[in-house]
Amino acid sequence: MSIFRKFRQWQFSKQRLEAFSDAVFAIVITLLVLELKVPHIANIQDTHEVLHALREVAPVFFSWIISFFFVAIIWLHHHQILSMVSGSDYGTAWINTFLLFFICLLPFPTALLGEYHHSAFIVMLWGLTVSATCTTLVWFYYYNTKYFLRDAYNAASVRKNVRLSVLAGPLLYLAGALLAWVSVYIAFVVYALVPILYLLPLDREKFRPSVVEV
Amino acid sequence: MSIFRKFRQWQFSKQRLEAFSDAVFAIVITLLVLELKVPHIANIQDTHEVLHALREVAPVFFSWIISFFFVAIIWLHHHQILSMVSGSDYGTAWINTFLLFFICLLPFPTALLGEYHHSAFIVMLWGLTVSATCTTLVWFYYYNTKYFLRDAYNAASVRKNVRLSVLAGPLLYLAGALLAWVSVYIAFVVYALVPILYLLPLDREKFRPSVVEV
Amino acid sequence: MSIFRKFRQWQFSKQRLEAFSDAVFAIVITLLVLELKVPHIANIQDTHEVLHALREVAPVFFSWIISFFFVAIIWLHHHQILSMVSGSDYGTAWINTFLLFFICLLPFPTALLGEYHHSAFIVMLWGLTVSATCTTLVWFYYYNTKYFLRDAYNAASVRKNVRLSVLAGPLLYLAGALLAWVSVYIAFVVYALVPILYLLPLDREKFRPSVVEV
Amino acid sequence: MSIFRKFRQWQFSKQRLEAFSDAVFAIVITLLVLELKVPHIANIQDTHEVLHALREVAPVFFSWIISFFFVAIIWLHHHQILSMVSGSDYGTAWINTFLLFFICLLPFPTALLGEYHHSAFIVMLWGLTVSATCTTLVWFYYYNTKYFLRDAYNAASVRKNVRLSVLAGPLLYLAGALLAWVSVYIAFVVYALVPILYLLPLDREKFRPSVVEV
Repeated sequence: MSIFRKFRQWQFSKQRLEAFSDAVFAIVITLLVLELKVPHIANIQDTHEVLHALREVAPVFFSWIISFFFVAIIWLHHHQILSMVSGSDYGTAWINTFLLFFICLLPFPTALLGEYHHSAFIVMLWGLTVSATCTTLVWFYYYNTKYFLRDAYNAASVRKNVRLSVLAGPLLYLAGALLAWVSVYIAFVVYALVPILYLLPLDREKFRPSVVEV
Repeated sequence: MSIFRKFRQWQFSKQRLEAFSDAVFAIVITLLVLELKVPHIANIQDTHEVLHALREVAPVFFSWIISFFFVAIIWLHHHQILSMVSGSDYGTAWINTFLLFFICLLPFPTALLGEYHHSAFIVMLWGLTVSATCTTLVWFYYYNTKYFLRDAYNAASVRKNVRLSVLAGPLLYLAGALLAWVSVYIAFVVYALVPILYLLPLDREKFRPSVVEV
Repeated sequence: MSIFRKFRQWQFSKQRLEAFSDAVFAIVITLLVLELKVPHIANIQDTHEVLHALREVAPVFFSWIISFFFVAIIWLHHHQILSMVSGSDYGTAWINTFLLFFICLLPFPTALLGEYHHSAFIVMLWGLTVSATCTTLVWFYYYNTKYFLRDAYNAASVRKNVRLSVLAGPLLYLAGALLAWVSVYIAFVVYALVPILYLLPLDREKFRPSVVEV
Repeated sequence: MSIFRKFRQWQFSKQRLEAFSDAVFAIVITLLVLELKVPHIANIQDTHEVLHALREVAPVFFSWIISFFFVAIIWLHHHQILSMVSGSDYGTAWINTFLLFFICLLPFPTALLGEYHHSAFIVMLWGLTVSATCTTLVWFYYYNTKYFLRDAYNAASVRKNVRLSVLAGPLLYLAGALLAWVSVYIAFVVYALVPILYLLPLDREKFRPSVVEV
């Protein structure tokens, strides 16, 4: 308890936390494309051969897309959470570091997924990584809104939302990860569909009547 | 309609949107150089052999240059569009994500182009990617100026400009992409010339008499 | 002396120093993952073989983790130091450049460590690099708090803290580096434990009674 | 003339120009380390063999160091120039783009230099690239201080400084590049010494009596 209090004693610049996190999100979302390696094409005049070579890249392309939108969505939520709070402390900084830890790790399971998309274990590994990322994001959401929620927000509604909507990410991706042992294609469908649930912003009317300040 | 309204209900920090986008643009424009691989030179004392080896890198160098200036121009226009608006919402954030999606993809068709510049299909692929990027930028321009245009601007002139000048990018690059099937060299000429049309800023006198606030 | 005074004559934008450093820290912390190469797996249906291949990656994974948290901690302290000062000059900018020099170098000894973790010399090299990084951070701490410490801080306590707590980093990592010649595993234990000492923020009560402004 | 006036009609956000440039500088300065490839070491228990393998990396390490400090110095001057001006326009943005073009290119001649440091042509190529970078920086300095110099500065002294001190970079690196044909080692000495001339900030007393605002 006293260690937790120490973390809470130091305020931390929310602006620099955002700048650092934005840079990490931006680099990871961009580095992912480096896994799209140029294939070897023997006869480039033969369009069928070119198409065939590009079709070989398709699984890597698919794993790139789901990872791209995963990072994009985490970034959008990271922004939304920080727009709801008035400050941050050393605790926020460390939870943020653990979140960035999983975000920075993502290119590795993504590369594995692109290379070995028939392996249930590898497909599960990707799901476990993003599920852990979502779990850390929920922790980040919980901590921020517990200690720094702006007065304009309805704390009870937000607390309920922490429990419900964001918790969906960890569980759905975990389910997708486990379903890889039934069929990797079911896992891929889950991985592709979950981001769609996050397209829409959190329902603001549950929180407060006027627009969100940023 | 009600889904679109949901996107419009959440305001989004224009400043953090810019910070994240700037970082992505900066990383992509810098990562492109990684495709310039050091060639193997057997006898480095023989300047002719060194020159010959570097001449082999020339197509990769050319595709690097056209991609570099393409990203630079998109960044300049991205900045210009955001300097014309007073805010942003969740809809802006998502259109921006789709724009960054194509920007992040660019290193892959660029690498393909550097490797297989004789293949009409590959040359077309590069053109289709940048045409899609330009189309998303038009969407971004349209959405931003429709909902967030500053009062100082003449809305009718801006709307006309959205239809005309920026639309040129998607169509010209698409034409270049299709002309690759006639001759890849015609496509390269188009790819090299289009950025020159975008050297000049939009004609501000059509929009408003005084200088643009930033 | 007169050269040092020249460095002190030019003020430097603290904000841009932070922006540039944040970007470098963010890129290095993200690039580290590129060393996690996808292993070759002959039979991906055989989970034992997949696990065996991933176990081969374990040393690279371990060196990735200790480097990740090392960079994270240097970033946290870099932020904390700059939050204690009111400005910066050309001297700050150059010490910061030397700090970023070692941070930018880190991926190389980390890659060596991942590949050759049985070599005492390589294990020592990683420790020497991070020890040099910590030493530069102490210099950065000393210089900043000597010339730009905010009035709200107790200068004597801060000076004592410069001598004591931050100096621990250089010496502990140096000890770990030298212990690699006894056993590389002892070195790894030291490398893994030192960051834990830095989990907690500096004891703010030694410095000043109220919260730190950021 | 009328085209130049068009460029001057649009103001450009100095802040976003700095943010984008900072990110590009940061990425290039960090990417350079990727050229430091882990060497193959057959017997890692033999410290002599480890040292021998690392000595093979020495030329790459040396070219990394001179490129690192070159980028650092260009960044410091980029910052100093922008701290002297009150705004920027579309012309600034394009000159900045050309500056970033050469900065983004740098990893390629650096990689060539690390691999083929005995080739006079390759050594010259590095010098020509950095000389072109310095020339663009002079152009950037000239343009910014001509149109946007803050009132607090002595315009005549600044103009003289543009002609003299910064012009030294392009000519000295060009001389080093040409001397590579006499001996690559003379070129290396020039490349290593030029940055030292730029360690000190511009002599502020020539410009104005009080400290520079940032």
